Amino acid sequence: MGTFEYFLEILATLFYAISGVRLAAVKKFDWFGAYTIGFVTAIGGGTIRDVFLKCNPFWMLDPWYAIATIVGLVMVIVLKKYLVRIEGTFYIFDAIGLGLFVDVGIYKTLLMGFPMWVAIIMGTITGAFGGVLRDIFINEEPLVFRKEIYATACIAGGLVYWGCLMAGASATVQQVACGLFIIVLRFLAVKHNWSFPILKN
Amino acid sequence: MGTFEYFLEILATLFYAISGVRLAAVKKFDWFGAYTIGFVTAIGGGTIRDVFLKCNPFWMLDPWYAIATIVGLVMVIVLKKYLVRIEGTFYIFDAIGLGLFVDVGIYKTLLMGFPMWVAIIMGTITGAFGGVLRDIFINEEPLVFRKEIYATACIAGGLVYWGCLMAGASATVQQVACGLFIIVLRFLAVKHNWSFPILKN
Amino acid sequence: MGTFEYFLEILATLFYAISGVRLAAVKKFDWFGAYTIGFVTAIGGGTIRDVFLKCNPFWMLDPWYAIATIVGLVMVIVLKKYLVRIEGTFYIFDAIGLGLFVDVGIYKTLLMGFPMWVAIIMGTITGAFGGVLRDIFINEEPLVFRKEIYATACIAGGLVYWGCLMAGASATVQQVACGLFIIVLRFLAVKHNWSFPILKN
Repeated sequence: MGTFEYFLEILATLFYAISGVRLAAVKKFDWFGAYTIGFVTAIGGGTIRDVFLKCNPFWMLDPWYAIATIVGLVMVIVLKKYLVRIEGTFYIFDAIGLGLFVDVGIYKTLLMGFPMWVAIIMGTITGAFGGVLRDIFINEEPLVFRKEIYATACIAGGLVYWGCLMAGASATVQQVACGLFIIVLRFLAVKHNWSFPILKN
Repeated sequence: MGTFEYFLEILATLFYAISGVRLAAVKKFDWFGAYTIGFVTAIGGGTIRDVFLKCNPFWMLDPWYAIATIVGLVMVIVLKKYLVRIEGTFYIFDAIGLGLFVDVGIYKTLLMGFPMWVAIIMGTITGAFGGVLRDIFINEEPLVFRKEIYATACIAGGLVYWGCLMAGASATVQQVACGLFIIVLRFLAVKHNWSFPILKN
Repeated sequence: MGTFEYFLEILATLFYAISGVRLAAVKKFDWFGAYTIGFVTAIGGGTIRDVFLKCNPFWMLDPWYAIATIVGLVMVIVLKKYLVRIEGTFYIFDAIGLGLFVDVGIYKTLLMGFPMWVAIIMGTITGAFGGVLRDIFINEEPLVFRKEIYATACIAGGLVYWGCLMAGASATVQQVACGLFIIVLRFLAVKHNWSFPILKN
């Protein structure tokens, strides 16, 4: 991927880390605990993906992911009041992060020769399972299993990726279409409170 | 392994998935959450085993495990009342699944050149740790650590496998003996409520 | 590493296992559950490290780690009263285990050609994440995220290791300095109840 995508990915890492650090603050963790939760939120999904693909986790090969998380921690400590004020806009950053992470997950999995259905699962894991790991670490029920359309937005985005691939579009078009679709779908889901049927007992 | 064993393994995946989906329903997860819990229950143990053996998780190489879980989800949604009626027979399917998964875990580990004690641990992980992961995901204390003889049935079955191996029996005899031993032991454990001593504080 | 270090590592495994088994007893797990928690506490951190480094988990290649955990379980069952009496000295064994595990984690990661900052993360994971996994398994909030200086002691020790490396000291000096620093720091932290600032919400 190009320099611009790399920049966006580091930015997505920062946003995810901030959201993780803020949840750790609710739980009254210390700075180390908050850093760990921020890091797990940001890199957890991609780490599971890389382990399943038999790669070293991506953040071991490039220090900027760990550094972005340090920046996130410092921002939460220093800009506390400002962050509370822009609370309502946070889902926008999260949606952008989600779209990017799914793109990265699908792209990397296809590159390693796996079929599209595996790539969609890996994209969903990359985007949504950092949050699942975060919730397991802070001992809460994973939010993603009950929230408005979230992981399913990743799957839907993956199907858009697939459609573009089948239609012979370039890799850039595939990624932009998939990422934008997820971002827009998340906007609409949050705005209109769209969610999946609950499974009744 | 032969076609019949493969068919049994997919069936065991379906049974494990159904049990996972039903627990997710108790927790009021949405359909995606329920699917994930069903999938984790069904393939979690084998995934940990494959990561430890440095393999790609088995379900990435064959779509039928993911499809069996979809079938499980649909069955829980559609056949809800019927499933409640046969509730009391569920442990039979679970026992069959357990016996099969332990067999698969031991067989694959030996095939990769590890000694028998490692294979027994991997067999136990394959059979019992999908349930442990499921309980971690739904934020409950793992049932397997307190239930009637369960994981220990896997270990006992592994010892039977070992005995057959030492006695020079064929691979088929080793697997049938181990699997049947686990199934029968689980029947008896559930019927007579056999459990291990609790560790007192 | 030499025979003496190996002996110390098995001893550290025993101490970690005992602490895990005792926590499982509080939760009224059965013997199998207690063994699993003890084993996860003792080998969990090193297992995550090995998966990230694309190695088979170390305990699959040498039965003495699993055996040390059996010894730990038997000791908790047999020596219950005696262990309660020496409760107050437990943190000493834990500190020694921590120092050793961090050394092992850093050493192994450097050996595989990763840079020092990755090695320090892997050392911290080796030392502190067995306890995190244990807390996730027993469904508690990870203690390490709120306790007196613990994981940060691992990071500090890693920096000492780095300093010795930069100063051209031998591998033995690097390890002894790092390990001792962590042990002394943990003594002081427990004695003076040193902890990190809590992140306020």
